[in-house]
Amino acid sequence: MLEYVTDAADPRLADYTRLRDVELRKSLEASRGLFLAEGEKVIRRAIGAGYPIRSVLTTRRRLDPLADVLGDALVYVVSDEVMSGIAGFQVHRGALASMARVPLPSMESVLAGGSSGRVLVLEDLVDHGNVGAIFRCAAALGVDGIILSPRCADPLYRRAVKVSMGAVFSIPYARMDNWFTGLEQIREAGYQTLALTPDQSTTPIDTVKLAERVALLLGSEGDGLSSRWLEEADEPVCIPMSPAAMAAGVDSLNVVAAAAIACHGLMRT
Amino acid sequence: MLEYVTDAADPRLADYTRLRDVELRKSLEASRGLFLAEGEKVIRRAIGAGYPIRSVLTTRRRLDPLADVLGDALVYVVSDEVMSGIAGFQVHRGALASMARVPLPSMESVLAGGSSGRVLVLEDLVDHGNVGAIFRCAAALGVDGIILSPRCADPLYRRAVKVSMGAVFSIPYARMDNWFTGLEQIREAGYQTLALTPDQSTTPIDTVKLAERVALLLGSEGDGLSSRWLEEADEPVCIPMSPAAMAAGVDSLNVVAAAAIACHGLMRT
Repeated sequence: MLEYVTDAADPRLADYTRLRDVELRKSLEASRGLFLAEGEKVIRRAIGAGYPIRSVLTTRRRLDPLADVLGDALVYVVSDEVMSGIAGFQVHRGALASMARVPLPSMESVLAGGSSGRVLVLEDLVDHGNVGAIFRCAAALGVDGIILSPRCADPLYRRAVKVSMGAVFSIPYARMDNWFTGLEQIREAGYQTLALTPDQSTTPIDTVKLAERVALLLGSEGDGLSSRWLEEADEPVCIPMSPAAMAAGVDSLNVVAAAAIACHGLMRT
Repeated sequence: MLEYVTDAADPRLADYTRLRDVELRKSLEASRGLFLAEGEKVIRRAIGAGYPIRSVLTTRRRLDPLADVLGDALVYVVSDEVMSGIAGFQVHRGALASMARVPLPSMESVLAGGSSGRVLVLEDLVDHGNVGAIFRCAAALGVDGIILSPRCADPLYRRAVKVSMGAVFSIPYARMDNWFTGLEQIREAGYQTLALTPDQSTTPIDTVKLAERVALLLGSEGDGLSSRWLEEADEPVCIPMSPAAMAAGVDSLNVVAAAAIACHGLMRT
């Protein structure tokens, strides 16, 4: 269903026009249970993953490429001027969709697993871009699923969705209810828990003996994993770094690069 | 030498106050041969790497932590208000330095090599953040040096410096004069040239036989390597991806994740 809107201040565009204010955005998403998908590819992936469409915002010119997947969704058609006037939006991407959230699967169901027997567990990663990039890596390399600690950033936040290129829709994830007991639940589901650490005295991820089911624990770039998780994990593992770089204290891997290398190591057969 | 400046429009701050305009910034950097280092750590690394200081812009409160490395450099001290008024600057980082560029080493000298016998060759990567992140990875993992194609983004551009955490100062790099003959020069310096490609029918980077000297060629995320380089390289190599993800066509690694995994594979002994 097409509705032509000529004014960016039109209340029908409320899902889209309040993007500027991060705090407002957060509460809007939580209370209304929505998220935004940006650009044709990502919108296709969100729809393909079964998320209900609340509405789509696009221009006349950018509507056609999406027409086959929109069904009878509500589509607001605006001019290029209105489109580019809406916060942070690049006209060349041409379409935004407001999608309804659906209940997350339980941790148990994500841990019930897929074909690889490999999952990631992210502890308190607060940067949405990093979360999105890690989802993209995990999906590309064939990880089965991702478990988030209670304080980990939302994978459906706009920037995470965008950076992931829609991988947040293709890889199952769940959020841990309880940080204290979360690892125990993972181990009870039959997973070996490996804690990634910069500590070069630990076993390299490429040579550690992998069980049939392995959960790799990743912490944030600044703080790393909590001492509780480091101690509770079955084994700490590292990515070997250049001794010269370590000695100079100047270089370390960013969390996405570390996650990529670690996932790759995890998927070896 | 301290100079107190009370007005953001003061012409002495010209190196810093024109940051908003990317195009202007580019020409400013080229014509005056300067670049900007942001934050105490990165400024220390730039100074430590021998780049001459043109000036430093900071607040009274943020000056002390840097005092030991500034020598008799010209320091403009401003109020928090003036500091935060200057384009894009986050007050908590507290210091910007305008540094003079120095001539780049020749490709020959970078290829003369270091301890690992491993170099990266970046073809036409235009995203400064990606270039910075790849430098950070390469430095952390112990790659000897980086060769840039003529059209590759500038590692000393502000965002590249920042994302690299200063690794652009710690790893030697050179720019190829000629894209057509560049690879030939690298091979003449005794390097095996490996072209990273998403093509899953090629040899995985982890199992390819590595020569004593290896140059890994990386292209941009969208276009990949040019067909010329792909053909001219000694061997194409890939990172094994999830067959399900490949089949769905939805997931691929971003260039930084791919570079991280490939560098790690390259450094195996």
